[in-house]
Amino acid sequence: MPRTVVALGGNALTKPGGEHDWAEAVERMRLTAGSLAQVVKDGHELVVTHGNGPQVGAALRQNEIAEREVPARPLAILNAETEGQLGLLIAQELAPALRRAGVPRTVLAMVTLVEVRPGDRAFKRPTKPIGRFYTEAEARLFRKRASWAMSFDGARGGWRRLVPSPVPVAWVEGEAVRRLFDAGIGRQVVLVAGGGGGVPVVRRRDGRLEPVDAVVDKDLTSALIAEVVGAETLVIVTDVPAVAVGFQKSWERWLGEVTSRELGRLLAQGEFGAGSMAPKVEAALQFLRRGGRRVIITDIPSLRRGLRGEAGTRISAR
Amino acid sequence: MPRTVVALGGNALTKPGGEHDWAEAVERMRLTAGSLAQVVKDGHELVVTHGNGPQVGAALRQNEIAEREVPARPLAILNAETEGQLGLLIAQELAPALRRAGVPRTVLAMVTLVEVRPGDRAFKRPTKPIGRFYTEAEARLFRKRASWAMSFDGARGGWRRLVPSPVPVAWVEGEAVRRLFDAGIGRQVVLVAGGGGGVPVVRRRDGRLEPVDAVVDKDLTSALIAEVVGAETLVIVTDVPAVAVGFQKSWERWLGEVTSRELGRLLAQGEFGAGSMAPKVEAALQFLRRGGRRVIITDIPSLRRGLRGEAGTRISAR
Repeated sequence: MPRTVVALGGNALTKPGGEHDWAEAVERMRLTAGSLAQVVKDGHELVVTHGNGPQVGAALRQNEIAEREVPARPLAILNAETEGQLGLLIAQELAPALRRAGVPRTVLAMVTLVEVRPGDRAFKRPTKPIGRFYTEAEARLFRKRASWAMSFDGARGGWRRLVPSPVPVAWVEGEAVRRLFDAGIGRQVVLVAGGGGGVPVVRRRDGRLEPVDAVVDKDLTSALIAEVVGAETLVIVTDVPAVAVGFQKSWERWLGEVTSRELGRLLAQGEFGAGSMAPKVEAALQFLRRGGRRVIITDIPSLRRGLRGEAGTRISAR
Repeated sequence: MPRTVVALGGNALTKPGGEHDWAEAVERMRLTAGSLAQVVKDGHELVVTHGNGPQVGAALRQNEIAEREVPARPLAILNAETEGQLGLLIAQELAPALRRAGVPRTVLAMVTLVEVRPGDRAFKRPTKPIGRFYTEAEARLFRKRASWAMSFDGARGGWRRLVPSPVPVAWVEGEAVRRLFDAGIGRQVVLVAGGGGGVPVVRRRDGRLEPVDAVVDKDLTSALIAEVVGAETLVIVTDVPAVAVGFQKSWERWLGEVTSRELGRLLAQGEFGAGSMAPKVEAALQFLRRGGRRVIITDIPSLRRGLRGEAGTRISAR
């Protein structure tokens, strides 16, 4: 059976603006679960990874508001909490959907730790905006009080905290999970892993794993997970049905079949948005460089047809 | 190899009053991890379960304080979040401790769903106090506004919210996990499951799993998990080295070897505290009734000697 990793973006889990409403998240996830169940029905062994931007944003805000009475927890710990929260959301909807589709599986959501290098240059230059928007006065305060890096978002008229986004170099639980897949776990279990890119940890000299205040790109972690479990295909689920060249310009062109070489050239030409499509393309290219066969970038409605080669952007290794 | 489930109480994870301080939790967990690693070194296949009372209390408080800006999430979802939080805490300290002890294992923390019956009488009569203390005026407000059941704690002079504590009748992921243990996962992996008693869900007629506002007793869930994975021994870790008869009375007597029949008689005589030792004894008796060989009730310092039959209260099946 083909082994497939599907990386769910924020919108597959919650409606934009609806990230605070659990009932809405359940409804959205139910639709996503129906599509994922069809993928299993089509014969795929499935691993699901997912983002957590809106959820970790809400948790940060709660920590901030309540901190005089309940000390705030570090970012990495909040990340682990969203793995629990969204692991539950995915499991509660996906397990019944699989049963309805006639392919019962156990959905097993796990806490994922990813090792990052303490010397990763991302720690010197934080680039990933997280949490809410601040006024200029607030930005000045947090810069001073908490040594936060802050950046001004002109389009939305506010300041945001920047955190490092280091590269995931190893999946802490990876070897054990790979053995489970070698032993056939994929026929009975849908694994949910790598939520929010995983909890970033650095390995100290005494061997201890120390969570760090950073956010790992969920698509890079998904590529790593796909590599470790020996998946043929990585699907990056996003808001658009495919990757576009000249996105929203008059010469816009949607990519169908494309080689990694071609896509790499377009990436180098600056064709893809820095905070949006470029990291997805980079994760795709990484997976294909390291032995993956195929990456599909598409949205939930096109997921099944994408895997059949009939929709989405389908990137081959050469 | 003997298979052993160790159920960690709150104090094995955090110091009393120190539940809000992540650095303190890490320190406390480091000590606990050292003891657990010795158990693995002594040849046990290990599954770790754990409570989450102080952590879910902190999360409830944050939700309450921040709710005008960030809508509060349901209790079951907060429970899943603490599974992520404490799963990380256990994994980050236990994995290195196992390596140092010369018995490297992958620590795999999973989100656990437990099925409860919608008709469980606990839903009609909530008994489990959670979260903070309220004044009488607040108690009246929440009773009216949110239909909370509330009870007055005379000793600590305040009102607390009561939630139902239904019986866990099935472990949703149990069958798949049992197969993994049958296939030998216990030699490579230490599983962390059943955190906070698991997330209680009811199965709706259409097959959907719906999280409910309740708290499942972590020791009953631990007994269920021990049964499902075919453990010989369940260890319930608490604050005292053993079970006492006449606890803190002049005729206080600590129990060493005891049969389940004898312990059942003492339980029926009302020897054990309702909110403290009685539920542990009930969980112990349930595990032994359903095929378990041995239950040990002890604290972290006595854990290893308890498993060797040299400390703690050791309960045999007959």
